[in-house]
Amino acid sequence: MVKKISEGENHKAVDIGSLNDLSGHSFIHPKLGHTVKNKIFLGEHLKSTGSEISFMELPPKTTVSFLHKHRKHEEIYIFLKGYGQYQVDDDVFQIKEGSVVRVSPDGSRTLGNDSEESMIYMVVQSLANTLDGYDISDGYRIKGEIKI
Amino acid sequence: MVKKISEGENHKAVDIGSLNDLSGHSFIHPKLGHTVKNKIFLGEHLKSTGSEISFMELPPKTTVSFLHKHRKHEEIYIFLKGYGQYQVDDDVFQIKEGSVVRVSPDGSRTLGNDSEESMIYMVVQSLANTLDGYDISDGYRIKGEIKI
Repeated sequence: MVKKISEGENHKAVDIGSLNDLSGHSFIHPKLGHTVKNKIFLGEHLKSTGSEISFMELPPKTTVSFLHKHRKHEEIYIFLKGYGQYQVDDDVFQIKEGSVVRVSPDGSRTLGNDSEESMIYMVVQSLANTLDGYDISDGYRIKGEIKI
Repeated sequence: MVKKISEGENHKAVDIGSLNDLSGHSFIHPKLGHTVKNKIFLGEHLKSTGSEISFMELPPKTTVSFLHKHRKHEEIYIFLKGYGQYQVDDDVFQIKEGSVVRVSPDGSRTLGNDSEESMIYMVVQSLANTLDGYDISDGYRIKGEIKI
């Protein structure tokens, strides 16, 4: 399902396949024990230390049937395909391809796909109040041989 | 270019439009002063505190013409469309839709699109060595009214 493509001292790279169909992926819920279909978490695969990344496909006319909060992690939802609705606390709004939603740990959140097509989205989790500057402020160019 | 769709105590949501065409977006390089086309950073728009998220479209037969490292941020590249090559330190490998690459701050990185179609990718930046557990370990379900 997840294929390693490269690994080195400073990186790890994997392929998860087409982003239009996540039906080949599933996740065993560590607390409830059941299988969650069409979902994949990549943190362990990537050995990431700053963000956990997951991908999810929500079938037509389906909702995530519970609200949840986080202890320490901020979440950012990125909608890659489809249409639906998102709820945070008392606010409900429409989301679609290109919508991006940032939720603080204490936000009560859920979402649903009220359309006739699959919805595909990504979630980024990271520790709240840790980011050290926006855009390119943390990066710096270096000299070296470009091989591509 | 970036349209606010909802904001509250615990969230902010925006629309950036189609993910198949980022030509409506551009970014003024804060150090060099020139305009970088087909690129958008969302951290300030989202008021995110754990991750900076950006989207980039790389035209056919184009490379990012420099190597860069980071001071403190881990980066995760997620390829949403197209084909190309990625370089970290001395390793070069092929990437395509569904490839995900985690790079530590000290990795020397660049990438290119050697294909005949546009490549679209996302980058997640977050402070290295801060993640407080993988998958769902930081979340907890709560009771409350689901309105969708």
